[in-house]
Amino acid sequence: MATFRVGLLGHGTVGSAFAQLLERRAERIERITGLRPVLSGVITRSRGGSFPELLERSELIVELIGGLHPAREYLLEAIRSGRHVVTANKQLLSHHGEELWDAARDHGVQLRFEGAVAGVVPVIRVLQESLAGARIQRVHGIVNGTTNFILTEMARSGCSFADALAEAQRLGYAEADPSEDIDGRDAAAKMAILARLAFETPVHIEQVRYEGIEHIGPDDLEYARELGLGLKLIGTAERIGEDGLAVSVHPAFLYPGHPLASVDGPFNAVTVESDEITEITMSGPGAGGPQTASAVLGDVISAMIPPACMPPAAERLRVVDDVVSAFYLHLEVADQPGVLAQVAQLLAREGVSVKSVLQRGLGEQARLVMVLHPVLESRFMAAKRAIAALPIVRSAPRAIRVIERQYL
Amino acid sequence: MATFRVGLLGHGTVGSAFAQLLERRAERIERITGLRPVLSGVITRSRGGSFPELLERSELIVELIGGLHPAREYLLEAIRSGRHVVTANKQLLSHHGEELWDAARDHGVQLRFEGAVAGVVPVIRVLQESLAGARIQRVHGIVNGTTNFILTEMARSGCSFADALAEAQRLGYAEADPSEDIDGRDAAAKMAILARLAFETPVHIEQVRYEGIEHIGPDDLEYARELGLGLKLIGTAERIGEDGLAVSVHPAFLYPGHPLASVDGPFNAVTVESDEITEITMSGPGAGGPQTASAVLGDVISAMIPPACMPPAAERLRVVDDVVSAFYLHLEVADQPGVLAQVAQLLAREGVSVKSVLQRGLGEQARLVMVLHPVLESRFMAAKRAIAALPIVRSAPRAIRVIERQYL
Repeated sequence: MATFRVGLLGHGTVGSAFAQLLERRAERIERITGLRPVLSGVITRSRGGSFPELLERSELIVELIGGLHPAREYLLEAIRSGRHVVTANKQLLSHHGEELWDAARDHGVQLRFEGAVAGVVPVIRVLQESLAGARIQRVHGIVNGTTNFILTEMARSGCSFADALAEAQRLGYAEADPSEDIDGRDAAAKMAILARLAFETPVHIEQVRYEGIEHIGPDDLEYARELGLGLKLIGTAERIGEDGLAVSVHPAFLYPGHPLASVDGPFNAVTVESDEITEITMSGPGAGGPQTASAVLGDVISAMIPPACMPPAAERLRVVDDVVSAFYLHLEVADQPGVLAQVAQLLAREGVSVKSVLQRGLGEQARLVMVLHPVLESRFMAAKRAIAALPIVRSAPRAIRVIERQYL
Repeated sequence: MATFRVGLLGHGTVGSAFAQLLERRAERIERITGLRPVLSGVITRSRGGSFPELLERSELIVELIGGLHPAREYLLEAIRSGRHVVTANKQLLSHHGEELWDAARDHGVQLRFEGAVAGVVPVIRVLQESLAGARIQRVHGIVNGTTNFILTEMARSGCSFADALAEAQRLGYAEADPSEDIDGRDAAAKMAILARLAFETPVHIEQVRYEGIEHIGPDDLEYARELGLGLKLIGTAERIGEDGLAVSVHPAFLYPGHPLASVDGPFNAVTVESDEITEITMSGPGAGGPQTASAVLGDVISAMIPPACMPPAAERLRVVDDVVSAFYLHLEVADQPGVLAQVAQLLAREGVSVKSVLQRGLGEQARLVMVLHPVLESRFMAAKRAIAALPIVRSAPRAIRVIERQYL
């Protein structure tokens, strides 16, 4: 069995999630890459360990230990020893990115860092690869989930900043010391990295102007609603004229219809604008152990293989066509007593239960619009056929599927 | 000068946009890859051309000629001759994808196809690379811009399907013969491709159940609004139990807060769900010559290089910190005549103009909330300082940036 040995630095929330995920997905990864990934060792701040020994027995180093030191020294040593490296360390890259990227280029190894910005939202890969040929005009991002959760909570409930922060801490969306999140510095580090990618210009975190959300009051959100605007902590990197670049993080109001306006809760999202592509937006969970670990694993897999040929069709799932769906049902019926009862009975006979009903009289007719709970489609269709055959039903019933959000 | 020769099949809307873009970006691509891309020749349906000769002088073939034949034969021949290939042909991949992917794997060449689904929205790359290690549960997509435009227009104006279709045709969002768009078959082809990627199972377009939007009436959209739902043409590919897969395209209602509910107009969007990553969503323009050409160019660049080391920082843009922004300004003022005039005068002195104002009395005080038109920040800040110094202003003014959507 050919293996690919991965040395891990750090075993906190993301590190331990990554170690688990690597093992759980090893078989699938072997199928894609031809190599089976194995964890060759772990070094943590508390338990220590010999880095030269770990390096000796690894093809790739994953750095999830955080902070500037010794993360910088470990990664430089790994790169100079010809190892690929994967990191999720935004502080490190916003301070010492240029040094690390130069070293990786000089030594012909990959340095990947999807997990450093917006967790599993694939903004790094998309800027670096999909948009490699585009001339980007502007990047806007909601790149801090803690502040987005707090602002969403303030808008929803009308509560104060302090109460929303306490709620975020209770739910694990804010740390015990949340200062770098709420003062905008965390977002500033991420915007420095995105600006470097989008505009090919070295950007240090100290060049990013930032402002947090501590001074936002419930009345700002109330007026925002009156003005029809949403309030978010927005990072911006934009081309100014021919030779300028501005990078900043500020609370900002968004007009409705802006792709970031509907990004709520602890989610992150990034919009990239250019005249050629107009705009693309990517959104998803910005943090969380398993999510960031997924981003790190995607990087590890990419470092294992030259890019993507389509792996052989390894699964042979049965393609099925009777699935569970919720439905909207629209009926034109006679406006007489007992109509709803007849319809409801036929639905019940097939196990279809009703979530909401609107009924509206139209002279001798009435219109009955229902939203139904999820049920196997074949059962719903049987009920619909039976309802269509009722004498009180005046035209063909119309059915449309209803989709609920799974997460958030 | 080392070159990389690209042979082009097809010179319609996307093909001609691609040829232009390749030339415009050649220098930048050379910087990233070390090779200068050049167009080695073009074959079109109308003017013809010798494919063996084109193949002879190309490292990579871009197929934008459309249809099943001779696109399939050309691509197979290119692959068997060891050329990388890039295509945006959804019909071809939903019919003959397995044959082409097998051939590419056998011959060790890349077959890339970002442009085949959702234009420049990077869903193919993200499924194939970023999420290579994830166990995906479900993919939902708005993958046809014509139908999304029509449904958005019906919801906005209350017009009929026929009127919205006519408007889409007038604006160039629908073709003269729109039948494959509106009956769901175009979306079905794209969902077959996404299902293959997400679930590693061969899926032929004939296995996808589909339904269009021809029968949707204005009253469905009206009831949707009453029920608080949005109506979209949604493609779904989902894992059913342990060994099942369902792939379909249907009109569907979405609850508010669903990441696809706010995708309006001719845009496309895809949401990928898994227990590990929860959900990520990507959105952007689903079609258009320059947009799809950008996706194709991203594929060409990826085929030119082993993946991504960070290119050297080639630009040295000045990092500037005085930029144009719109602002919201929140003032607590004395409730007396002339207050608004004093404030407005100071704004005007700095060239700041007012877009909207809310004023609310609070006993002896009033609150004045304004949204201002975009202006250089230094000018706005000067006006704000002057306003803060007015005797009638009772507490420190609060200012928050306002962002408008650039495109759509």
